[in-house]
This record gives sequence, structure tokens and C-alpha cells, in this order.
Amino acid sequence: MQTYKIAVLKGDGIGPEIVEQAMKVLTKAGEKFGFEFDFQNELLGGAAIDATGVPLPQKTVDTCKAADSTLLGAVGGPKWDSQPGANRPEKGLLGIRAALGLFANLRPAVIFPELRSASPLKDEIIGDNLNILIVRELTGGIYFGERGRYTENGVEAAYDTEKYSVTEIERIVRVAFDMAMKRSKKLCSVDKANVLESSRLWRATVERISKDFPEVEVSYMYVDNCAMQLVRNPRQFDVIVTSNMFGDILSDEASMISGSIGMLASASLSAGKSGLYEPIHGSAPDIAGTGKANPLATILSGAMLLRYSLDQPKAADAIEAAVSAALKKGRTCDIAAENLPTLSCTEMGDLVCESL
Amino acid sequence: MQTYKIAVLKGDGIGPEIVEQAMKVLTKAGEKFGFEFDFQNELLGGAAIDATGVPLPQKTVDTCKAADSTLLGAVGGPKWDSQPGANRPEKGLLGIRAALGLFANLRPAVIFPELRSASPLKDEIIGDNLNILIVRELTGGIYFGERGRYTENGVEAAYDTEKYSVTEIERIVRVAFDMAMKRSKKLCSVDKANVLESSRLWRATVERISKDFPEVEVSYMYVDNCAMQLVRNPRQFDVIVTSNMFGDILSDEASMISGSIGMLASASLSAGKSGLYEPIHGSAPDIAGTGKANPLATILSGAMLLRYSLDQPKAADAIEAAVSAALKKGRTCDIAAENLPTLSCTEMGDLVCESL
Ligand SMILES: CC(C)[C@H](C(=O)O)[C@@H](O)C(=O)O
Ligand SMILES: CC(C)[C@H](C(=O)O)[C@@H](O)C(=O)O
Repeated sequence: MQTYKIAVLKGDGIGPEIVEQAMKVLTKAGEKFGFEFDFQNELLGGAAIDATGVPLPQKTVDTCKAADSTLLGAVGGPKWDSQPGANRPEKGLLGIRAALGLFANLRPAVIFPELRSASPLKDEIIGDNLNILIVRELTGGIYFGERGRYTENGVEAAYDTEKYSVTEIERIVRVAFDMAMKRSKKLCSVDKANVLESSRLWRATVERISKDFPEVEVSYMYVDNCAMQLVRNPRQFDVIVTSNMFGDILSDEASMISGSIGMLASASLSAGKSGLYEPIHGSAPDIAGTGKANPLATILSGAMLLRYSLDQPKAADAIEAAVSAALKKGRTCDIAAENLPTLSCTEMGDLVCESL
Repeated sequence: MQTYKIAVLKGDGIGPEIVEQAMKVLTKAGEKFGFEFDFQNELLGGAAIDATGVPLPQKTVDTCKAADSTLLGAVGGPKWDSQPGANRPEKGLLGIRAALGLFANLRPAVIFPELRSASPLKDEIIGDNLNILIVRELTGGIYFGERGRYTENGVEAAYDTEKYSVTEIERIVRVAFDMAMKRSKKLCSVDKANVLESSRLWRATVERISKDFPEVEVSYMYVDNCAMQLVRNPRQFDVIVTSNMFGDILSDEASMISGSIGMLASASLSAGKSGLYEPIHGSAPDIAGTGKANPLATILSGAMLLRYSLDQPKAADAIEAAVSAALKKGRTCDIAAENLPTLSCTEMGDLVCESL
């Protein structure tokens, strides 16, 4: 029987609880579809700082590199907020992205029909089938550029550098065009080309690469306008491609618009098959350990892992169907419905396993 | 009789039409409250490129500097999109902000009760009195930092620099605290301090200055979270203070949420009394000259000019009341109401004058 090595980074806050449920569901799917998992737990983020002093131990990098793919919970929390910049939990997340070359972050913002009423937007704006895919560049730009402090005429100053090379832009843009080809062949590139030089290089690169994808209808939008349009008329978008920072902001906005934030998974991909899969929500330290966490986004991240990294689309479909079925029988409190029982994190995981 | 010198930068697209109406209303207000205007037209943006070859002629800067304040329409349009970075209409806007030292951009996102149904957000999320003030730093950060291109291992790369000094942060933060003191004494500072060094300096500066305003309740939020929270629960915010780029994105998002985007004015202030006042919407080249433009945001910018730069709060109140009254009698097509006549830009301006 095929055995997949999966590096598991439970992380902080609710991370361990939600990842437990995803492992349970993945194992169940393996039983059904004839494969097994060798889960290898490693430390990342605050948990790693507490145990080893650094947010990303070398052992974590090594295990992830040797694994077929990586499953992540969430990192960070107020406990580590006073850490200096270089030693914060988030630095572990940025570090693992860089170490594994995860330059393409796929952030779907979809509405689960069962949760449609949870969107803050009016029904007529949401429609029935909001389905946006934000392709965010993940290992370049201002989150990885040179930064520092200096004194200027006796006054302290700090800087960060937004930097992109054509190579970096080209590879993420190609991923976005590939995705657009598999979807509705519409791609919107978001930048601030009226001001930023890096955005102008970005836009010129998209224009050049668009020639290789003549079927894809390409549009360009400034980031400030995009932040508006996502609220005004989100259905105008299908695939959006943008820089690390703009993608960070816009993908969070888009996921909130869907109203399904506790349900959204994400994939971070490298040039090869392996990737890192995680829910888009954070570590929610305030509810950690209370059993209130919703494991579904992590379970669905597991489904993405099966689809993109392990070529097990049937098992991925089955998990997604099981989640839909489970939503009709019970819910965690963040997505509670009047006529359905409210479940704990573990019970929700069990229900998905049963539905599988 | 007191005569105020006002530099008028009509700009591009619908700029001239909407500014005409604002001048008409200001003149009428002057007649009523006993003062006069000496309007001095100057070129900015695309119009300036066409006439002089540059987006910000020195004469424009000189006139604005000598004036009591400046009224602006809007700049930019596809006609100038192929201009190189240094010679785009937007460069004129950035240039005049820098030349006049307009470091504080006040961007209110308010709901006009008459337009409440135009918000894309559900009624229960909007409530009855959404009123957010975004204080955006306007002459620093990545829109003004060093930028350029270079070749790195034979590959082209481009960069932009986000840079803030303590002095720059401190002055905008003080404006925000002053505004918070006049409002509900709640201030949220938005940054990305978990990643950016400039954000960490920003946050430390807010923390330090908050000691001078013990009555103000200060909170901190990451920009990605803020982009979500504005959609999820905008009423949690009163005054938000943030950097140039984050403010650009978040203030546009917030204004769209209000549903009143054709109605929103903004003020850009310097250390002194004079400022620059403009609608938040763009130059809408597609409807320029058709008479469809809504002049109300520009008229309300005129009211802000009276209040902040000319110390004429009564005249400002009167214009705001006249706009409210006019909204009940007729509307431009962007905010059309079934039971009210649809008016042209000029008719809308006339109606406000009559209501004064
Ligand atoms: C925690 C932080 C560094 C991270 C980011 O901004 O990349 C997070 O917001 C995300 O989107 O994954
Ligand atoms: C036109 C552009 C340079 C400008 C900015 O981003 O500052 C505009 O978006 C604004 O918000 O006034």
C-alpha cells in the first residue's frame, strides 16, 4: 500500500485541535481509497519558540523537505507579541515559505451554499455562486525585501523594500494563467502601476506572458479600486493575481465577503508537487482548548493536499462531499444553525469521518 | 468684505464639470454669509500634460502656495496611461501633495441616510450611523520612497521603498489623536507590524504618543485583518490612522462600504491652515461631458474647505444642510431614486444653490 509522508505543523492556539481532526479525516480517506499516511509532527511558530528558542527549527525544514507535502494549523498569538521582529512566530511562517520555495499561494474565496446567509454582503450582490481564486505571490515583495532602521538627521527611521524580479513575477503569473485556463479564462492582475515601479514591471510582465495565453481575457486593476470592487461587485472576478502584500490584504477581504471564513482552505505551492496546506483563519488563541474551534477549513486543506500534491482527486472529492454532508447534520458554534446541533471541534471531525 | 483666494485645479475627466458646481455653491454661500472668493484656475494632471508637457507646472504650485486653500476635481484617465512613470497625471497629484506638505489626508466614510440602501452590506451590519474617519498619511511611505530598476544576475528587477521617520509618523498620529478627541475617543492604528520594520516603528510611535492622550482608547490591527473587519463589522471603527499605502486601500474599501461613494469628500491638510479638498471618486473619463457626473462630493469638499481652512463653520453647515435638502428633491443618475427626478450635474448644482 502506498504510504505518504506528511509533515504536520500544528502550530499555536487552536492549531493542534484542528489539525488532529484533519489527520483523522485524511486517515479515514486513506482507508477508503487504499493509501496510508506517515505523519511527522514538527514545531513551527510560537510552539517552536517555546521549545527551541526559534520559530523555525532546522529539523522542521528538513522534515518538510523530505515529506510528500505539509499540513499546517496556524501560528502566532499575544504570548509572543513582544518578541523582536526576527524571532516572532510569523517569522517561522515566512521562513518555511521561503525554505520550501512556496511562491504560489492559492486562496479560494467561495461561498458554501449552506452558509450563504453568513455573508455580510446583500444577497443580490453575492448571487448564488461567488467563487474567486486569488493567486498571491508568496516568497517575494515587501515581506521578504531588505528592511532596517537608521538615523536621519538625528531622527530614527525605518524602511522595507518591495522588490520583484521578472523571474519572480513570471512564475507566479504563469500559475495564475494556468488556473485561469482551467476556470473561466478570466484573469485580473492587481497592482499600483500608477505609482510603484515594481507594479509597472509586474504589469509589463503580465502583458508579455498574456501572449502565451491568447484565450485568457486579461484585465488590470489598481489595488485601491480592487478593494472597492470586491465589495461592490465581487462576481466580476474569477482569478486575481497579485503581489504578496496586496494578496495578503485582498484575499482576507475576499474571504470575509464570502461569509465562509471558517471554511476556507489554502494551498501554497512550489515548482514541484509538494506544497503547504493550511486554513486561512488564524490561531484564535482566545478559544484554544475550549473545543469551539471549527476544523473544517483544515479538513478541506487536507483535501487540497490530496488533490494538488498527492494526485488523489477522488479522495479529495470524497472529503469535500463529506464536509458538505456534515454541514447538514451539525455545526461548530461559529457557523451554528438554529435547527442543527452545535458540535465541538472533535465531534465535527467525527461527523465528517462518518459522512465519508 | 473678506475675499478668499482659492486655487482651483479642475483636472481631468469630469473634474471641470463638478468643480464648476462647487464654485457656484461656494459663491452662493459667500453671498449669504458675507465673504467673497477669488478663484484662480490652474492646471494639474492630464490637462497640465497636454498644455505644458508636465503634470504639475510650477505656476500651479506657486498659486496654491499663495492661496488660502485649494479645491481639486480629479486627475487621470486612459489618455495618459502610456506616459512614463515620471510624467503621469497621478505624479501631479503626488507632487502637489508633497509641494504643499499635505501630510494628513482625512477620509470620512459616512452613510447619507437617504442613500443607506445603496450600501452593498446588509442593513444589520451597516446600522444607521456608520461614520468612520480614516486618517491617511499622505506624503511619505512607499508612494514617495526611493524606487528604480536594476539588473540582477541578468534579470530585470524593480523596487520601491516604504520608509517612515519618527517625525513623519508622529505628526500624522497627533492629527489622528486630535480627531479622536473630538469624536468618540477611539483610535485604531493599522499596520503590518508582524512583518514590516516601518510598521514596528509606526506602532511604537503610536504607543508613545498615546501617553499624551490618556482619554483615547487605542487599539492596533494588522492591515489584512482590518480589510476583513471593515466588511464584517465596520461599526467597530471610529478613527483609523494608517500609512499612505494602507490608507489608500482601506479608505477606498471603507467608502464603498458606505454606499455613498459619489457623496464623499476628503481633506488633505498641512501643518498650517491651508489644505486641498477633493472628492474621493476619480475622474470618470467615460462619463465626462455627458452631464451625468454627480457634483455633490465636490460641493461637500467645498464645505470642508470652509470649515477647516477658512474658519467658516456656519457656511459649511449651511452647504451640508443644502445638500441633504437637495437629495430629497432630485438626484444625479448614480444615486437615482424612483420617486425623484434625475438631474444633470448642473441641475444638481443649481438645486443645492436654491436649497442654500
Ligand atoms: C502571519 C503573516 C505573516 C501572514 C502573511 O501576511 O503572509 C498571514 O497574514 C497570511 O496571510 O498568511
Ligand atoms: C491617483 C493615486 C496616486 C492616488 C493615491 O493612491 O494616492 C489616489 O488613489 C488617491 O487615493 O488619491
